[in-house]
Amino acid sequence: MLREFYHAYIDCLNRQAWDELGRFVADDARHNGRPFGLAGYCSMLIKDFEVIPDLRFVIDRLACEPPLIAARLMFNCSPKGSFLGLKVDGRRISFTENVFYEIKDGRIADVFSVIDKAAIEAQVASE
Amino acid sequence: MLREFYHAYIDCLNRQAWDELGRFVADDARHNGRPFGLAGYCSMLIKDFEVIPDLRFVIDRLACEPPLIAARLMFNCSPKGSFLGLKVDGRRISFTENVFYEIKDGRIADVFSVIDKAAIEAQVASE
Repeated sequence: MLREFYHAYIDCLNRQAWDELGRFVADDARHNGRPFGLAGYCSMLIKDFEVIPDLRFVIDRLACEPPLIAARLMFNCSPKGSFLGLKVDGRRISFTENVFYEIKDGRIADVFSVIDKAAIEAQVASE
Repeated sequence: MLREFYHAYIDCLNRQAWDELGRFVADDARHNGRPFGLAGYCSMLIKDFEVIPDLRFVIDRLACEPPLIAARLMFNCSPKGSFLGLKVDGRRISFTENVFYEIKDGRIADVFSVIDKAAIEAQVASE
């Protein structure tokens, strides 16, 4: 069930269906310790798509054990300008994100995400 | 069962019981795409403890769904010299690692790890 929930959540992100985000994200959700709430969480995602117009979330691996969802996400995209403090400037880069979600009352309450910044550094440095 | 396996693996690392590592790691194990094998995997860990004498693996979160183990590890330690290309020079730092393990025939066959380098950068820059 967490697996279906997560696939539907990722589909919601990829469709940028922000009016549906509240089905998946709790009103008082936290992201890497920041008390974003649903509104702040939504703003973060809208900003991500602004900086990365070709952003697409792809699930590489998924391990679900209530109340946790752990996902390895793969990205292949072209951020404009700076991304994570690195001057990517529209170059196409590939990187992964390993992320844990804590589910509470059927929605994402807490997110603990790590993006592979070292992989992006290596790609930006090699050009 | 994966949960017990993983706790025993982490205990093996913290005891630096390298003669027991083969109970947990496959002979042809890969780490972030590198075909290390058990010997290379062991060398990596021995080197980690050389660079970080007070290294200790602490499980913060754990999601097990066969054949995957997903762990969020927390570190609070003092790497000597450079660590991930950052001049830590013995300062005490805290960071996390989100890591997936693929289990095959009862042992770790593949590891996909991401360390929160940005968090370390922020701590090194702030001093």
